[in-house]
Amino acid sequence: MSNKNILILPGDYIGTEIMAEAVKVLEVLKAEGEAIEWSFGHLGGAAYDAEGHPYPPSTQQAARAADAILMGAVGGPKYDSLPRAVRPEQGILGIRKDLGLFANLRPALAYEELAAASSFKPEVIAGLDILILRELTGDIYFGQPRGRRTNADGAEEGYDTMHYSVPEIERIGHVAFQAARKRGKRLCSVDKENVLETSRLWREVMIRVGQDYPDVALSHMYVDNAAMQLVKNPKQFDVIVTGNIFGDILSDEASMLAGSIGMLPSASLDVNNKGLYEPIHGSAPDIAGHNKANPLATILSVGMMFKYSFDRADIAERIDATVKKVLRAGHRTGDIAQPGEKVIGTKEMGDAFVAEF
Amino acid sequence: MSNKNILILPGDYIGTEIMAEAVKVLEVLKAEGEAIEWSFGHLGGAAYDAEGHPYPPSTQQAARAADAILMGAVGGPKYDSLPRAVRPEQGILGIRKDLGLFANLRPALAYEELAAASSFKPEVIAGLDILILRELTGDIYFGQPRGRRTNADGAEEGYDTMHYSVPEIERIGHVAFQAARKRGKRLCSVDKENVLETSRLWREVMIRVGQDYPDVALSHMYVDNAAMQLVKNPKQFDVIVTGNIFGDILSDEASMLAGSIGMLPSASLDVNNKGLYEPIHGSAPDIAGHNKANPLATILSVGMMFKYSFDRADIAERIDATVKKVLRAGHRTGDIAQPGEKVIGTKEMGDAFVAEF
Ligand SMILES: CC(C)[C@H](C(=O)O)[C@@H](O)C(=O)O
Ligand SMILES: CC(C)[C@H](C(=O)O)[C@@H](O)C(=O)O
Repeated sequence: MSNKNILILPGDYIGTEIMAEAVKVLEVLKAEGEAIEWSFGHLGGAAYDAEGHPYPPSTQQAARAADAILMGAVGGPKYDSLPRAVRPEQGILGIRKDLGLFANLRPALAYEELAAASSFKPEVIAGLDILILRELTGDIYFGQPRGRRTNADGAEEGYDTMHYSVPEIERIGHVAFQAARKRGKRLCSVDKENVLETSRLWREVMIRVGQDYPDVALSHMYVDNAAMQLVKNPKQFDVIVTGNIFGDILSDEASMLAGSIGMLPSASLDVNNKGLYEPIHGSAPDIAGHNKANPLATILSVGMMFKYSFDRADIAERIDATVKKVLRAGHRTGDIAQPGEKVIGTKEMGDAFVAEF
Repeated sequence: MSNKNILILPGDYIGTEIMAEAVKVLEVLKAEGEAIEWSFGHLGGAAYDAEGHPYPPSTQQAARAADAILMGAVGGPKYDSLPRAVRPEQGILGIRKDLGLFANLRPALAYEELAAASSFKPEVIAGLDILILRELTGDIYFGQPRGRRTNADGAEEGYDTMHYSVPEIERIGHVAFQAARKRGKRLCSVDKENVLETSRLWREVMIRVGQDYPDVALSHMYVDNAAMQLVKNPKQFDVIVTGNIFGDILSDEASMLAGSIGMLPSASLDVNNKGLYEPIHGSAPDIAGHNKANPLATILSVGMMFKYSFDRADIAERIDATVKKVLRAGHRTGDIAQPGEKVIGTKEMGDAFVAEF
């Protein structure tokens, strides 16, 4: 069997720092005999600097050839005034679309050890473990037509098209029901069916797909209510499935339940479970270069990669367990430290992880 | 001067119960000599039952003629299986559009007395006072074209159009800057400018409108980040302005900061400050008819009506102050009671309010 080939895209600002720690974990695994190898590429601002485009042909080629992709974070002030077509986020949108990474998995997990860092009362989040499944290649993100036009009153207007087709909804629906089946067997589909035509079709198709999964309890919730319920009583949820734009909003909201976005990994999968794995946090220009960033979300992303793309849930579990051990031992980067606690750096956190791994 | 003419639309389920308490407050004000009168009409399910349409011609006529409208809540299981065109929410969407109620004001206020009922730690919400301004007659809610079509791959798809024109953005922009000017002088405009054409225009126009308000500090935030920041550190905001769909989601999320949606009023204004006032909560079919609903949000909506449509901020302040007094005296309906606290009914809460008023 040939080695699994991982493309690493550190990206911008803290991206390179956190990725260096994730690589330490890959090195341990390789030394233990795991059949993996990796190479590096550019995405986002770094790619624009090096090759004039946020998702350049060299990265495209490497990404298509890879078995999985590990990404740091992209974007930052240096690139804010670039023309839109070459801004870093176009690199992310580009690679998602190019590789057909339609299923974005975002677990939101509350670490007991970090309850003090959360805005929420401990009892609201204790034991929280939900999975948000966001469709990632459709919806209003890529919908045509879009642009500027003159409306019926002769005024200039901006417009975009939200849309979902039956096969797109079926595809994410199956992923969602299968994920729910492996967890608490409850799936909540979030839409705005009382207002949107796209949502009406979404709900119809979800109900139809659900007939293949009689063991999973399907419910529906309007997106406004979901935004409220996530804050009111997040533990009512097991798996949530929703479209690209609603998922963008709700998954960021839900990330706060975990206390720090420095702790949350994500996976974006294609139809064959090839995936791009990344922490959900951004490139944090304010702390970049200072050995301050929390590398744990990136390391947890390595775990998701082993679980989903390499079918090695055992390694994912070992990584998850090690993160808990490291937290229990009191290791804290600045984002998860309470006043008075000792703060360690990015490298030291990576080393602490490896020492316990 | 002729009397101010208020149209009361109790709506469905608890709508009639909470409205009866708001009317007690109107009666006190009238007895004190305020030049107001009121009449009743149907909206939502009640209107469908009585006249076959959720926003029937009789209500339309009365609403157009009124100086202000006070609404309870509409919708509920009885009407869920009706054809979409006559479902209760079409009554709400219909009256908003018909009267041009483009500016939806939703204050989110944390009552010290209710901190125990909130999911948030007291220090996160103590003293919270933010205003969310949601554009209410544009965006993807009413955008054309919308419907079903066959896409390029021959698959069926549902689609909707998001759009905003320059005059629509300017109009809500001016309301937002003026509101910020009367408060903390900070306005945060929320969009998804890194992805949507509609948002690009939105941001351009907000910046342009801002030139008329050099005393107000304008900032911009992506909607996903705003959903996160509202939970992480809500007190960073003063006034938030956003479009219809993002506002729907964010304002419901923000309502949870207040502890109970039973405490939150809202106003929807036209260009002349004629408005529709309503609690933000729904019709609560589960507790309807049991004298359990909290009437305070509806009573606070009466306060907003006096402030915005009748230019009587003094009465609004008196109502706000009385609500605080009532809470301080320990009066609690079920939604805001803690375990062990004495719970009173809808009518008793209305009476307690009037007694302190
Ligand atoms: C950068 C941006 C285009 C992106 C998105 O909206 O998808 C980001 O918010 C995310 O969630 O990954
Ligand atoms: C009932 C529904 C159409 C409505 C909306 O989405 O505007 C409601 O959620 C609201 O916020 O008033």
